[in-house]
Amino acid sequence: MTFQEPIHDVAQLAMVEIFTPKYEESLNFFETFLGMYKQAEDGKSAYLRAYEDRYHHSMKLTRSDKAGVGVISWRAMSPQALERRVAAIAASGQPGRWVEGHKGYGRAYEFTTPDGHVNHLFWDVEYFKPTEAQRSRLLSRAQKRPLSGVPVRRLDHVNIMVSDVTKNATFMQETLGFQKRENVVFGGKDELACWLSVSPLVHEIAMTKDNSGHGNRLHHLAFWYGSQGQMLDIADLLKEYGLHIEAGPAKHGISQGYFIYFYEPGGNRIELFGDCGYLIFDPEWKTVTWDETNFWSEGGVWIGGDLPQDFFVYGTPIVEAAAEAARAAEVEPAE
Amino acid sequence: MTFQEPIHDVAQLAMVEIFTPKYEESLNFFETFLGMYKQAEDGKSAYLRAYEDRYHHSMKLTRSDKAGVGVISWRAMSPQALERRVAAIAASGQPGRWVEGHKGYGRAYEFTTPDGHVNHLFWDVEYFKPTEAQRSRLLSRAQKRPLSGVPVRRLDHVNIMVSDVTKNATFMQETLGFQKRENVVFGGKDELACWLSVSPLVHEIAMTKDNSGHGNRLHHLAFWYGSQGQMLDIADLLKEYGLHIEAGPAKHGISQGYFIYFYEPGGNRIELFGDCGYLIFDPEWKTVTWDETNFWSEGGVWIGGDLPQDFFVYGTPIVEAAAEAARAAEVEPAE
Amino acid sequence: MTFQEPIHDVAQLAMVEIFTPKYEESLNFFETFLGMYKQAEDGKSAYLRAYEDRYHHSMKLTRSDKAGVGVISWRAMSPQALERRVAAIAASGQPGRWVEGHKGYGRAYEFTTPDGHVNHLFWDVEYFKPTEAQRSRLLSRAQKRPLSGVPVRRLDHVNIMVSDVTKNATFMQETLGFQKRENVVFGGKDELACWLSVSPLVHEIAMTKDNSGHGNRLHHLAFWYGSQGQMLDIADLLKEYGLHIEAGPAKHGISQGYFIYFYEPGGNRIELFGDCGYLIFDPEWKTVTWDETNFWSEGGVWIGGDLPQDFFVYGTPIVEAAAEAARAAEVEPAE
Amino acid sequence: MTFQEPIHDVAQLAMVEIFTPKYEESLNFFETFLGMYKQAEDGKSAYLRAYEDRYHHSMKLTRSDKAGVGVISWRAMSPQALERRVAAIAASGQPGRWVEGHKGYGRAYEFTTPDGHVNHLFWDVEYFKPTEAQRSRLLSRAQKRPLSGVPVRRLDHVNIMVSDVTKNATFMQETLGFQKRENVVFGGKDELACWLSVSPLVHEIAMTKDNSGHGNRLHHLAFWYGSQGQMLDIADLLKEYGLHIEAGPAKHGISQGYFIYFYEPGGNRIELFGDCGYLIFDPEWKTVTWDETNFWSEGGVWIGGDLPQDFFVYGTPIVEAAAEAARAAEVEPAE
Repeated sequence: MTFQEPIHDVAQLAMVEIFTPKYEESLNFFETFLGMYKQAEDGKSAYLRAYEDRYHHSMKLTRSDKAGVGVISWRAMSPQALERRVAAIAASGQPGRWVEGHKGYGRAYEFTTPDGHVNHLFWDVEYFKPTEAQRSRLLSRAQKRPLSGVPVRRLDHVNIMVSDVTKNATFMQETLGFQKRENVVFGGKDELACWLSVSPLVHEIAMTKDNSGHGNRLHHLAFWYGSQGQMLDIADLLKEYGLHIEAGPAKHGISQGYFIYFYEPGGNRIELFGDCGYLIFDPEWKTVTWDETNFWSEGGVWIGGDLPQDFFVYGTPIVEAAAEAARAAEVEPAE
Repeated sequence: MTFQEPIHDVAQLAMVEIFTPKYEESLNFFETFLGMYKQAEDGKSAYLRAYEDRYHHSMKLTRSDKAGVGVISWRAMSPQALERRVAAIAASGQPGRWVEGHKGYGRAYEFTTPDGHVNHLFWDVEYFKPTEAQRSRLLSRAQKRPLSGVPVRRLDHVNIMVSDVTKNATFMQETLGFQKRENVVFGGKDELACWLSVSPLVHEIAMTKDNSGHGNRLHHLAFWYGSQGQMLDIADLLKEYGLHIEAGPAKHGISQGYFIYFYEPGGNRIELFGDCGYLIFDPEWKTVTWDETNFWSEGGVWIGGDLPQDFFVYGTPIVEAAAEAARAAEVEPAE
Repeated sequence: MTFQEPIHDVAQLAMVEIFTPKYEESLNFFETFLGMYKQAEDGKSAYLRAYEDRYHHSMKLTRSDKAGVGVISWRAMSPQALERRVAAIAASGQPGRWVEGHKGYGRAYEFTTPDGHVNHLFWDVEYFKPTEAQRSRLLSRAQKRPLSGVPVRRLDHVNIMVSDVTKNATFMQETLGFQKRENVVFGGKDELACWLSVSPLVHEIAMTKDNSGHGNRLHHLAFWYGSQGQMLDIADLLKEYGLHIEAGPAKHGISQGYFIYFYEPGGNRIELFGDCGYLIFDPEWKTVTWDETNFWSEGGVWIGGDLPQDFFVYGTPIVEAAAEAARAAEVEPAE
Repeated sequence: MTFQEPIHDVAQLAMVEIFTPKYEESLNFFETFLGMYKQAEDGKSAYLRAYEDRYHHSMKLTRSDKAGVGVISWRAMSPQALERRVAAIAASGQPGRWVEGHKGYGRAYEFTTPDGHVNHLFWDVEYFKPTEAQRSRLLSRAQKRPLSGVPVRRLDHVNIMVSDVTKNATFMQETLGFQKRENVVFGGKDELACWLSVSPLVHEIAMTKDNSGHGNRLHHLAFWYGSQGQMLDIADLLKEYGLHIEAGPAKHGISQGYFIYFYEPGGNRIELFGDCGYLIFDPEWKTVTWDETNFWSEGGVWIGGDLPQDFFVYGTPIVEAAAEAARAAEVEPAE
């Protein structure tokens, strides 16, 4: 039988929108602590970039009554690739339609996953153009490294909470060509989480089972440092200024990522990724599956403290059970 | 006009063969200082792996009267991709033929670049299978992390010295689908170096102009750490034990790689790559071009000491002019 | 009233003896994973040094039926200082006597603390003399950096479990001139731990309340790296090879030390110190006191995972209650 | 003969005054890039602290027509120690007098070294008292870690350029009890530099021979990070914003310090110290002497790029020859 060739039609996770009930505090946090640049702002949203992100923005921060995730935007590998994927999504039966006028990119195909997460796939994009003062002396750097906080370098991945991991992952694999790099399966049948990518990265998107019954939530949004030392520096700042660090700095077995998880002021969980993890170049990669015999001892955390109960229940929007667990873990913010 | 879709037919740099006139010393160095595993050995060659390399070997170390580079082996993205690239190479007029029986992989297409470097492209590969004692508790790690030296994680890239950078790069771009990520062009016309990749990495192969007139030489072979601190640790060991460190630890502007260059006992320049550099996900990436106005001040080295004259003339096999420069820089080895 | 001048009569913690019921496994661990040198060995003990320790040895590893701590040896600041401290100890009423012939140093004054820990104070010491092959090219380094594991640089401190922290600390302060840099006091009266030093270091010796009723035990022995990255490297090795990591890498609020705690094969808790912590130069330093309102949230761990229950009960020799807690936490050693 | 006991009467380098012809630019630099706090300011000077410095200030930045060093202020170990040292200085024949009213400390003894550097020795000091908003949650930290730049932790040492190294070092040793930890002697007689300390640090003050004939100049003022990664971060910022990095990040053999040298906007050389170096606890320490056979290969730089010619000639105030060398090395500041 013939080897099925991989699909290379989705280039990257380009932008993610998150909702915040504390818009000013959230915006100030991303600017001051993570050194992100506010590229644009309208009455409802701010458009932010990490200093090595190349497009108009990589995160859209939107006022809302609840925290959570909005549109997840992907860039196609080519105009032709965009058409191919749109055809595949349409064939899948999941609802979709072409939309216009989103800030930062042109005509996009909007579709929802089985769990209801809204995604955009587009080709035409608006590049960030630095002013003379913003231009870096490092030609491959989109913008000067900022002076505030411990600045993140680029958007890395998004982790969504879904009612059915296998079903939603299959949709992303079959319609968009994602490959399942790692997953967690307990009892030989219950898929609790998985990590999917269209590149050598272990994941641009991951899925965590939502046990709250709510579904369609955000587990976390992740930005990238690639440096171990910067993780201790940002953790020091978060601790000093009273942000709630949920876990880390520590190293996952899964993805080999050196991580820290905390809640931004609006309540969304943010991950900072301070290692290179590992890269997958093998085209015959077999999904690495963790189970109850090794997830707790090596997979969840390879080096460093444990993942708290919160990590497995808390997501945004917050649902009560999770909220209680989260409140229980809340630290007293310093004035 | 329509956007030309990128080619995704070459998956990765899989293996590189280097020649050494000091086989035992070289072998001992790679095992003791870089923690590489000797997977196999025959009368003529040793087959070595970094502990996160997944195939039978990633470096073939071969006895020879002179240092230098042998076969550069690439894995295709699929059997179909292999056939497509073979057709393109054949169409290019460069000589090529199918070869069998190379240790570590099956039937391969052997071809030479315009400058004469010998390459293999293959699909069927032999995976490394750890013994019980070698198996890592980290499921995505091919083998236990070794206890000796500062062990490298994987083969990263090869940099070859060629008589004509543009001509050889064009061959790799047109026949194999490499993209030119960065290059150095002085006087608006003389291409002195370029960095090519088939993945988000800035390069799996780079080319440096060989001014010695020899051509078809090795500039360096690079292994990957991804950790800044390990660079200081390996540099400390190299200095203690009298290896010649040519440059670094320092950070290139080009590739943003945190590097160290030194000569292994056989005389081949080895680079260790201790940073993540940056990754390229933009399918419309435009080659970043450095020139005489910024190469010396930012491109060659962004942070840290300068690149010595050796760096621009020394390669293997050693040709006299370069050899003199190298000898001049030689440090007294400690007993 | 006049300011009481500090006493500067004790120069440093020079050597510590630990007992192990698994002599060969312990010896192999310290040599292979921590890169320590076996300077001498007799039927009963091995004498080990970190590569930047300057004397004959810094740790004496002794065969025993139980794990635990033996003699704690201090070097005086001068021969005169030795006499002054001996007079002060004698005046304190604690038993003491001059002893001869301990390997590594000359005539020493042996005394016991109120809790029964045996200490030596000496002046004449035997320096380590490297062979030509062992001599480092770095003149301030006692010996070449070793090639095995992630080598520790020097002995840092010892932490002992005592029945009465205040009483034993007072003895060290009044007779030897230690200063209490930090302590933990709950309920405004119960001193649970303290950190004492005779130098700008926060501690050469620390004391932890022994709730087992046993007393006179070892909490941990600590070696120094001073590098954050090396902590992740040694943790990776310990995890790979099945050693029990109790906590860390993480950062204490107390001492600001970046730590990792694990049990060597003989069962003794070892700490590796991967940060500089902070240094105290202020001669009017006031003891920093942590209580129940800030010890759990900032003092015990400033950055990273929590300290497990084990940390507060387990010591050597092992007493049952603690042993159970320890066994419960035991991981499955890898083959 | 009896062992001469060490003197422990000087506790620490407390404050250093530097002059700048570009007061506003210098002040902005120390606040924005090094995260220093402006504790006070009068018409002529600003008083700055690193966030872990415990007194009113550690650096006094003073308007002047030329760059250079002003008063170097030391804290005594006790009031009695202050009197003892004053008596020793007076006995030495070097001019001295009691002065009052310097901001940050009380009555001080002002004296000049043979080369003319002005020093203060004092006991009574004004401690920094954080406001509620400035108070750190880490009890041993004087103030919250700042959010701007890569903040330095504390003042580390000063390096002065003198006409006669041996003569000036001898004065510091005999009158204040400094110990000579390392030095550089070429040709067996010409002492080119030395490192002196009153603590386990390798130096609180160092001396470099001034070949310009001027003497009484500043070679550099050093602040401390203790983290290797932060050195790459601050170097990245300096490079981005056009400051002149003279050397590093690299590791000295002497002091084992991981260093970076650059010129602040006023022209004074600043060193950032990103490693722990090594600490000296041996009371019988013998001065480590480097000569022409090992200074260039190991002593000056152990790991990393070379020290440029500037390093050996440039100091402040700038004298012509040195100025030319410095201008030659000047990079184009980015807008």
